[in-house]
Amino acid sequence: MQSLQVDLGERSYPIYIGRGLLGQAQLFERHIAGRQIAIVTNDTVAPLYLEALCHTLAKYSITPIILPDGEAFKNWETLQLIFDALLAARHDRRTTVIALGGGVIGDMAGFASACYQRGVDFIQVPTTLLSQVDSSVGGKTGINHPLGKNMVGAFYQPKAVVIDTDSLRTLPSRELSAGLAEVIKYGLICDAPFLGWLESNVDALRALDDAALRHAIERSCAAKARVVGSDERESGLRAILNLGHTFGHAIETHMGYGVWLHGEAVAAGTAMALEMSRRLGWIAEAERNRALRLFIRAGLPIVPPVEMTPEHFLGHMAVDKKVLDGQLRLVLLRSVGDAVVTADYPAAVLQETLVANYQALFEQLRSQ
Amino acid sequence: MQSLQVDLGERSYPIYIGRGLLGQAQLFERHIAGRQIAIVTNDTVAPLYLEALCHTLAKYSITPIILPDGEAFKNWETLQLIFDALLAARHDRRTTVIALGGGVIGDMAGFASACYQRGVDFIQVPTTLLSQVDSSVGGKTGINHPLGKNMVGAFYQPKAVVIDTDSLRTLPSRELSAGLAEVIKYGLICDAPFLGWLESNVDALRALDDAALRHAIERSCAAKARVVGSDERESGLRAILNLGHTFGHAIETHMGYGVWLHGEAVAAGTAMALEMSRRLGWIAEAERNRALRLFIRAGLPIVPPVEMTPEHFLGHMAVDKKVLDGQLRLVLLRSVGDAVVTADYPAAVLQETLVANYQALFEQLRSQ
Repeated sequence: MQSLQVDLGERSYPIYIGRGLLGQAQLFERHIAGRQIAIVTNDTVAPLYLEALCHTLAKYSITPIILPDGEAFKNWETLQLIFDALLAARHDRRTTVIALGGGVIGDMAGFASACYQRGVDFIQVPTTLLSQVDSSVGGKTGINHPLGKNMVGAFYQPKAVVIDTDSLRTLPSRELSAGLAEVIKYGLICDAPFLGWLESNVDALRALDDAALRHAIERSCAAKARVVGSDERESGLRAILNLGHTFGHAIETHMGYGVWLHGEAVAAGTAMALEMSRRLGWIAEAERNRALRLFIRAGLPIVPPVEMTPEHFLGHMAVDKKVLDGQLRLVLLRSVGDAVVTADYPAAVLQETLVANYQALFEQLRSQ
Repeated sequence: MQSLQVDLGERSYPIYIGRGLLGQAQLFERHIAGRQIAIVTNDTVAPLYLEALCHTLAKYSITPIILPDGEAFKNWETLQLIFDALLAARHDRRTTVIALGGGVIGDMAGFASACYQRGVDFIQVPTTLLSQVDSSVGGKTGINHPLGKNMVGAFYQPKAVVIDTDSLRTLPSRELSAGLAEVIKYGLICDAPFLGWLESNVDALRALDDAALRHAIERSCAAKARVVGSDERESGLRAILNLGHTFGHAIETHMGYGVWLHGEAVAAGTAMALEMSRRLGWIAEAERNRALRLFIRAGLPIVPPVEMTPEHFLGHMAVDKKVLDGQLRLVLLRSVGDAVVTADYPAAVLQETLVANYQALFEQLRSQ
């Protein structure tokens, strides 16, 4: 087992990474203060791992809370089911909520923990690659609003993150690819050598090689922990973690939550951010192509939905959380491994980026 | 104008108390970072003060958000109206939300501010005595759940609290009395000399004497600021602020939110806490009677609803936020001016307290 620390003063917590961690009771027990726990999961993950986790934690009074699976359910109505269950089973302030599932479960269980009786403990047990490398670390929690993704939420840190890499054995390959979008992101924004490692290991990752997976997860979590440790509430640096997300959120919102997986939308959105960085003269065409080829090899889309016009993008992006005093800030690459957040770009270059021919680019790169 | 400080490190903020503060633009401007503001109020307060406040803040882009009035609307559906309006008007993270109204408006606008884009600035402008002396200070925000009051919320501090005592001129006398319940509470839990002052000045307060009101508000806010400053997240001492609230919340939940005013339920609940403290031998009968007489003179009920059985009380109190590991902790008085939070009492004394004849006590005290 490997272990990392997210340094946030009195809100610091460990990330444990290894095989079979779902069965290690003492890992959990050191982070559980009371006698009650609630395990929040969904109807896809519950049949796979809920019984095993309940067995591990048999000494506690357990309330299982099983939600419908999918980003489309990341809303208030579903969140309310958590509060209903906690209150019906009379969970008090000393309870611990455990999020067992992917990013949607982690975001909702975390937000419910932030709000239930104004805050109770919670533990992240992410079971998808995407949630293991990204959403389970850093304390961003929340739900979607019909007018924007993650618009209602809280910064609320878990007591621990327990990553059992065995859970990736049951993950559909489309979801594994979606997770790789965020893994590649860390290489692009702050770790150029990691990008080289990924080029050599993307096939091993897709084949679920455990050593490769553990290395990718640890390096991704370490990058995220560094960034979050220096800017917990996203007043500056932390925003670079959103490379590709402003374009990507527009895709998710426009297509309807859950039609594109988050990682897929981030991949296509990152393709747009790379294209814009190239048009600004910050990265070379060869660098853009190298990154796009890696996304393609990871099984990810680099072409935004054909039905989305520039007006669609601009409309959705106007409510992005990075808008300040009316100015849309974008995460772009100064060079590979060096991201910046900036509103200082010509509007024309954004416009050109929105109408660029990504389909032609995809066909050209695929045939090389 | 008087001014106090709530000391919470980087989350410290001032409380301004005085006449005509709604018209003082510079008081607000020093706490507003961006260009956008949203004023959250209700359909009772809006006709009285919204135009004046908009005039004061005319240099900003203002979104007024007018909610239906009353505790019955302190729920998710109404909260959603705030998010809808903020998103429709494209408020970004640099926006400031201003709560203009009583405790319900402050709790909901504060909770919306805590959650909107994971947290934006807000300013409390309480217009009722109850919210001026209690709910606007200390950062408790939230909404009710059908199974319990304030069960969903956040600790989230405002940037400033602006108390314009002129707003009490339009307050119905029943609501003024409800506010006095919390004022009397401070005397009982931590300021015995203030209780003596209140006995001499309760008639002046009910007659809206401005000097008396300002003194009562300042002394109450100072007490609250001291307690909150030493225990922001209610891990210990802060719970004493809930004298009478555990019984009182049971009354509010049982009768339906808004049937009893919060202050009325707190008064009857405090009568029960006083009775229990007397039965434990901690305070004398004369001390209990002295406090109850003050409640009666303030126009407040000291008799819980006749239709509520001990089983009703115990059922509602089992989900109180002060329950820990199954034990119901109560706020009781060791002596007048000295409250404690304790689960260390015989169950029989609680039972006797729930069946005591408060109506007979009321008639006895009223006739003296």
